[in-house]
Amino acid sequence: MNRARFITLEGGEGVGKSTQIRALAAALAARSIEVVTTREPGGSAGAEAIRTLLMEGNDDRWDARSEALLFAAARADHVARTIRPALARGAWVLCDRFVDSSRAYQGGGGGITDAEVLALHRFGSEALLPDRTFLLTVSAAEAARRLAARGDSDRMGNKPADYQARLAARFLEMAAAEPMRWRVVEADAPAPDVTAAILAGLAEWLP
Amino acid sequence: MNRARFITLEGGEGVGKSTQIRALAAALAARSIEVVTTREPGGSAGAEAIRTLLMEGNDDRWDARSEALLFAAARADHVARTIRPALARGAWVLCDRFVDSSRAYQGGGGGITDAEVLALHRFGSEALLPDRTFLLTVSAAEAARRLAARGDSDRMGNKPADYQARLAARFLEMAAAEPMRWRVVEADAPAPDVTAAILAGLAEWLP
Repeated sequence: MNRARFITLEGGEGVGKSTQIRALAAALAARSIEVVTTREPGGSAGAEAIRTLLMEGNDDRWDARSEALLFAAARADHVARTIRPALARGAWVLCDRFVDSSRAYQGGGGGITDAEVLALHRFGSEALLPDRTFLLTVSAAEAARRLAARGDSDRMGNKPADYQARLAARFLEMAAAEPMRWRVVEADAPAPDVTAAILAGLAEWLP
Repeated sequence: MNRARFITLEGGEGVGKSTQIRALAAALAARSIEVVTTREPGGSAGAEAIRTLLMEGNDDRWDARSEALLFAAARADHVARTIRPALARGAWVLCDRFVDSSRAYQGGGGGITDAEVLALHRFGSEALLPDRTFLLTVSAAEAARRLAARGDSDRMGNKPADYQARLAARFLEMAAAEPMRWRVVEADAPAPDVTAAILAGLAEWLP
């Protein structure tokens, strides 16, 4: 019952990942579980410095291969300095995006294969995978509404609608390929209902 | 005769690589060859930003795997943005350190193999190798004298003497394993003599 768990939330922009991480952290803390919430890219001092390089500048600042290597470097630092130490002391780690985002974003285009993204992850982070990954999905209309409300415009956030659709399809493929790890949660619903659906997907591990 | 050539200089700290790059560039320019001089880590805008992350901070700022991924990311950017465009227009590229430095420094310790460093290079830079690599060697006493005169003290420069000796041995092994590409040049001699030895190692390609 007390084993540490590594939980990630995945999905496109505006699906509500950070809201759900906060709600989930509160729900777990209420059950006396030590929780560490983190995010990618970033989540450790070195990885946050790399995040700045990745997020700033023009769309073409990095080519696809440099970008994939920078994400892998940031993840290696994040895993070594934040995630593994937290799991080692028994905390649950809730992470907003992880290697599956690299698989969806970097592995889906630019001539980089899913196998290559996973090879970088094996090299950098000993292929650490979450115990459970929740894919939050929203309808295209709802995603557009949320993004417009936030006014997102960094290097990662402002891609055209067909890109977002391909991305959503990539995430669904990954979830279908690994059903023991993934749970797909429809996130058009009010936030508390989404949190309840996520907690249901963790029921087997909850005290 | 006019084909572009990619030439690298390798070796430990204080062997005179940057002095020789300058002298070599002048000697080639005097033969009407367009020369681009560059260095690693760095050599392009993105790679210089990554260089700053690599060079600043404490010795333990990065673990070995994050560091190797950052070097590979910087190299991928350097190759894509500086080296390949220069070679494509017919210029000779003279580079102070390249992937062989990663093989010697990152691949020689920290649990990372030479094959892993080369796999990262294949992913990031399509395994681009120099046409010729000059390994500059100096006696341990001469290296210590030069380093003391420079007062080097960044994250890469201040390692103990036995580390420098292992590094020198690694470089010599690599040179021995690929004799067509490498030339070993003893660099205790006065700088103009060293430049002459390097030029002799390029004679087959010089106009």
